[in-house]
Amino acid sequence: MRLQGIDHVGIAVLDIDAAVEAYTRLIGAPPVHRQVVDADGVEAVMFDAGSSRVELLGSLRADSAIARFLTLRGNALHHVAYAVDDVQVSLDEYASMGLRLLDTCPRLGAAGSLVAFLHPSAGQGVLTELCQPLATKEG
Amino acid sequence: MRLQGIDHVGIAVLDIDAAVEAYTRLIGAPPVHRQVVDADGVEAVMFDAGSSRVELLGSLRADSAIARFLTLRGNALHHVAYAVDDVQVSLDEYASMGLRLLDTCPRLGAAGSLVAFLHPSAGQGVLTELCQPLATKEG
Repeated sequence: MRLQGIDHVGIAVLDIDAAVEAYTRLIGAPPVHRQVVDADGVEAVMFDAGSSRVELLGSLRADSAIARFLTLRGNALHHVAYAVDDVQVSLDEYASMGLRLLDTCPRLGAAGSLVAFLHPSAGQGVLTELCQPLATKEG
Repeated sequence: MRLQGIDHVGIAVLDIDAAVEAYTRLIGAPPVHRQVVDADGVEAVMFDAGSSRVELLGSLRADSAIARFLTLRGNALHHVAYAVDDVQVSLDEYASMGLRLLDTCPRLGAAGSLVAFLHPSAGQGVLTELCQPLATKEG
């Protein structure tokens, strides 16, 4: 499946500003990206943590998927995202194995990546994302 | 804090054998390590996923911490572990910043690493582990 490593974990938080402050201390540096995704009712804040990243997810609307997750669980790990060379190739491989997908094609995610989600059943109840960075860190 | 990346995520599962089968498909390879930790009442199964790892955690006793977590949440992401150069140095830095620790000294973890846990309050309710690999992958 050519998983290259864990690109990031997504953490749902009730208070995004308090969480940004806490993770700035935990990681030792401020966030590198902050983005409102109106369509999903979500604010996403990304930290670099060495070769991986940490994404904080706050809800902007009571009917968002993150709001429902937070109501059930409070602050908690929400998903794990694996880096892959080619999201579409990986999706096709998983589909051919009979795994359920939430996305059949990659879409543009936060901070310049192509992303797609597998159905939680593929990860034993854990929401799993595939992530293909578009920007290269060079120079 | 010198976080090098996400070493692994820990996933608590009700049925370790079903989860091993599912993650062998998801990751594309069988586990690299399987270990019973009697003191914790836990069976830990580790997969390599590129530069990171995935650890499945099954409970062996109704009074284990994993059993209590599973009763509350069912199968779910349990903790995130960051790779660091020196667990003790990182613990001392976090303590000096006023973050709460569960371990004040590193201890031997699964699959040959020194590990220590921060109190969930340090990660906004998310259990956070520090992990210092002892074995080098060379040759």
